Amino acid sequence: MVAGEGARRKAEARSPDGAVKVTITEIAREAGVSVPTVSRVVNGRSDVSPATRARVEDLLHRHGYRRRPAAPGTKAALLDLVFNDLDSPWAVEIIRGVEEVAHEAGVGTVVSAIHDRAGAARQWMTNLRARASDGVILVTSALEPGLHDELRHLGVPLAVIDPAGRSPVAEAPTVGATNWAGGMAATEHLLQLGHRRIGFIEGPPRLLCSRARLDGYRAALDAARVAADGDLVVPGDFYPESGFVGAGRLLDLPEPPTAIFAASDQMALGAIEALRRRGLRVPQDMSVVGFDDLPEVRWSSPPLTTVRQPLSDMGKLAARMLLDLARDVEPAAPRVELATELVVRASTAPPRRA
Amino acid sequence: MVAGEGARRKAEARSPDGAVKVTITEIAREAGVSVPTVSRVVNGRSDVSPATRARVEDLLHRHGYRRRPAAPGTKAALLDLVFNDLDSPWAVEIIRGVEEVAHEAGVGTVVSAIHDRAGAARQWMTNLRARASDGVILVTSALEPGLHDELRHLGVPLAVIDPAGRSPVAEAPTVGATNWAGGMAATEHLLQLGHRRIGFIEGPPRLLCSRARLDGYRAALDAARVAADGDLVVPGDFYPESGFVGAGRLLDLPEPPTAIFAASDQMALGAIEALRRRGLRVPQDMSVVGFDDLPEVRWSSPPLTTVRQPLSDMGKLAARMLLDLARDVEPAAPRVELATELVVRASTAPPRRA
Repeated sequence: MVAGEGARRKAEARSPDGAVKVTITEIAREAGVSVPTVSRVVNGRSDVSPATRARVEDLLHRHGYRRRPAAPGTKAALLDLVFNDLDSPWAVEIIRGVEEVAHEAGVGTVVSAIHDRAGAARQWMTNLRARASDGVILVTSALEPGLHDELRHLGVPLAVIDPAGRSPVAEAPTVGATNWAGGMAATEHLLQLGHRRIGFIEGPPRLLCSRARLDGYRAALDAARVAADGDLVVPGDFYPESGFVGAGRLLDLPEPPTAIFAASDQMALGAIEALRRRGLRVPQDMSVVGFDDLPEVRWSSPPLTTVRQPLSDMGKLAARMLLDLARDVEPAAPRVELATELVVRASTAPPRRA
Repeated sequence: MVAGEGARRKAEARSPDGAVKVTITEIAREAGVSVPTVSRVVNGRSDVSPATRARVEDLLHRHGYRRRPAAPGTKAALLDLVFNDLDSPWAVEIIRGVEEVAHEAGVGTVVSAIHDRAGAARQWMTNLRARASDGVILVTSALEPGLHDELRHLGVPLAVIDPAGRSPVAEAPTVGATNWAGGMAATEHLLQLGHRRIGFIEGPPRLLCSRARLDGYRAALDAARVAADGDLVVPGDFYPESGFVGAGRLLDLPEPPTAIFAASDQMALGAIEALRRRGLRVPQDMSVVGFDDLPEVRWSSPPLTTVRQPLSDMGKLAARMLLDLARDVEPAAPRVELATELVVRASTAPPRRA
């Protein structure tokens, strides 16, 4: 059976371990409001006064209330997939994975971008209440703390893809990729080809995944007893232009590298263009490795050697966790990193003989 | 006020010109069912027998019924954005545009892929009913005829982006791009550079946009009094591999072209890779032009000369039309083509002197 409005409104108060703790009737009595009013708050309706909503949400939270565990066989109707920005080809990979799982379960995938702006995030939260979403998947999202609290009070199940830092909601399950191992694999590949001076273009340092890739790069150099040279690490922000600029900085060093490992595919494409403009060929004059394995880099010129992040699988897994949570099934493993994999194509080769 | 369930269920029967024609009570009487049953059908609920649903939908359709014109100031809660596949970077461009407009209006954007398979489309239709979506945007979608009829019967407003052929629902507004003018502009650019043998890699012939781009190419050749050579037109399917193969076929001609116009950016990237593998440089040995202006081609090597399709603006306009329709406002112009624009970058140059 597909959940109609009836099923979407059904709700019981449960403690975090899944046992029914209080009924909505008890919450209503304690708050001094009607049962339909509690139900309206539970379902994120807007026709409740702010004071009443705050009182009821506080009680729901204090009683460890968990929203609408659907009866067995019923299906949630909507999940929210939230990006900071919809400006990267990797967003579509994650959407594809989430949509595939949600679609099969009869659940719609609502895609939103909050643009790192408080106003847009606030609007999204209002919309989320209005549509009584059954769960939220945040992608590398740094929601402001006030919104974390609201999400927790709403009691909507939450999962996080590619956590930017500590999970914004402590109890939310997270799905990431083995960024450290991927950074190490890419660097080992270049070392095995004979490179010793390997440049690294970083991601934004506030993201955990950036730090993990950098540490993987350093660990591989260490293991090969190659001294790390701080000049060979230049900043980037995952976007192509920063790869273009970063590669330029590396080429301008008194002793430039013979290979560049960029912490994202998009920066690797920017780096390749910087090399082309200086008349340098990839891989004959310089090897380049990326990170992500976006579909388009199979067709870059040359096709890019990169570290595959299973973005679509990450989306699938997060969606499955969320659908489980919506049925009050705790995920078996709430902190998961899916394996990355080195994909060797045509942008890497042994260093040119000096 | 944000629409709660109450507003989402409110519905009146209207004729296509917006005048109230029959009430739900009259439909119920004529169908021999209760008013709540008609309401359940109108709202796509699943708890109605198939026979009753069919009878009621038939009556609603015969009376020119239009679903839920929201009261002024209320907002629709959800719109559905439907792709055949979520496998192309241009999908994210359209999603971005639709989401931006929907988000501002307090409306969630539900993204789905129906994979050109009847089963998935059927499941989507079931989900659509269950979530009582306020409108549907189809992207280049060839829904099977049975589903067109169901959509029409459901009375959900519909808009089509980049219509694949005749509009699947005759009265639905469409948003496209000036494909013919774009094909002409790309070809004129190559002619002005001095090219006379210009290869063309086609899109799928069943899509109107493919045909329009090809006709634009031919029109530009005609206008310049350059004889069209049928060997210079090779098939493709918009994906990179077909550009790779198509470029190979053009290069194998007894008299190969000096420039290639690919009807999509992804095919242009495939063509550039085919040239690289044969040791040919772009643009020194061969010029290449694409179509779309995906964000990534700013950073292809070399950056691609292409025809910009305003994909994100197309998404925005379709979303606006749909939100208008949901408020029973007919779009001022129901068939719109947004202007394409030639963007000259580094992949085109005069032909090499023989």
